Amino acid sequence: MTQSGHQRMGKVGISGSSDSTFTTDGHPQPPSKRNISMSLSMYQASVPAFVQMLNNLSAILDKAEAHAESHEIDPEVLVNYRLAPDMLPLVRQIQIASDVAKGAAARLAGVEVPTYDDTEKSFDDLRARIAKTVSFVQSFKPDEIDGSEDRDINLTIREHKMSFKGQPYLVHFVMPNFYFHCATAYDILRHCGVELVKRDFIGTV
Amino acid sequence: MTQSGHQRMGKVGISGSSDSTFTTDGHPQPPSKRNISMSLSMYQASVPAFVQMLNNLSAILDKAEAHAESHEIDPEVLVNYRLAPDMLPLVRQIQIASDVAKGAAARLAGVEVPTYDDTEKSFDDLRARIAKTVSFVQSFKPDEIDGSEDRDINLTIREHKMSFKGQPYLVHFVMPNFYFHCATAYDILRHCGVELVKRDFIGTV
Repeated sequence: MTQSGHQRMGKVGISGSSDSTFTTDGHPQPPSKRNISMSLSMYQASVPAFVQMLNNLSAILDKAEAHAESHEIDPEVLVNYRLAPDMLPLVRQIQIASDVAKGAAARLAGVEVPTYDDTEKSFDDLRARIAKTVSFVQSFKPDEIDGSEDRDINLTIREHKMSFKGQPYLVHFVMPNFYFHCATAYDILRHCGVELVKRDFIGTV
Repeated sequence: MTQSGHQRMGKVGISGSSDSTFTTDGHPQPPSKRNISMSLSMYQASVPAFVQMLNNLSAILDKAEAHAESHEIDPEVLVNYRLAPDMLPLVRQIQIASDVAKGAAARLAGVEVPTYDDTEKSFDDLRARIAKTVSFVQSFKPDEIDGSEDRDINLTIREHKMSFKGQPYLVHFVMPNFYFHCATAYDILRHCGVELVKRDFIGTV
């Protein structure tokens, strides 16, 4: 029994915390192929997670488009579908997921957040928006984002000013927001009958 | 312009990466009250995020129960509501969010994962399940989970065996899964007309 009373299961080797050996040119390998001898860092907890989920979202949109075609549904109906009249439609869920990801990478790195026009109308447009977001977040090198735990982050959302330090911003604001909009996009499409399973959301880990 | 071409906005002070100064007796302060001069770590990226979201989920269930009462809806209808006939109902979304959180804390710390009977039938039962999960994950000290980046994690989900290192397990499997079930619980209730806004999901950061 450990001090806090948990029953420990045999010894499992844990290497000591070492500096990140994850050197990327901005095109990280899928997690399974990565050299994972590293320490968790602000970069590791954000950019690779965004990239994986955004790519999964793009593949989910492929399935949604195929479903619309095979069921003779106007694709715009799905793009504009909402789970409730006062909830945001699919198109906004994707735009906001993109905004959260690009905003987080930029703010943690201390660079300007790019503005994207929210003009997407089709599945193609949405996939292009996602691809642009993936390229943007992948353009950061780990050392541009690592060490941002104590960085002052200020943002304004619909006239509501918010201030954070980098770490609570990432852990308690960015990640729940990002996944909220990704999961709601998935839920809208599942509710519409698109053949998706949770593996489409999680992807290959 | 930095090497990767981002326009940097003035200098923002970032303290160097320092060891975590977050000493907790297992009852972390809300993020806004925490001493946030720390480095992101496996503990910091998991337990406080679980605690915050699970507590938000409990408050969301309070609102759902009040909605059922004021609209003369049998609470069991909400507890068993699904967004699609082949999606899991609210009760399972909450149980799985709980399973993901307790499983992650235990596996990263290398202790046995506690089994909870999935017998919840009411809002009270679900809040008790959440409270039990919060207590369990809060029972870990940071140093029991920190340094688990390279720990071997093996799990079996419906006869499907999965193996991870600790860091990709947390970043690419646990967090998206956890938030997926929390967001789907929220989406089910919003779809049913419960008066919720995203702030109920994100909480006070």
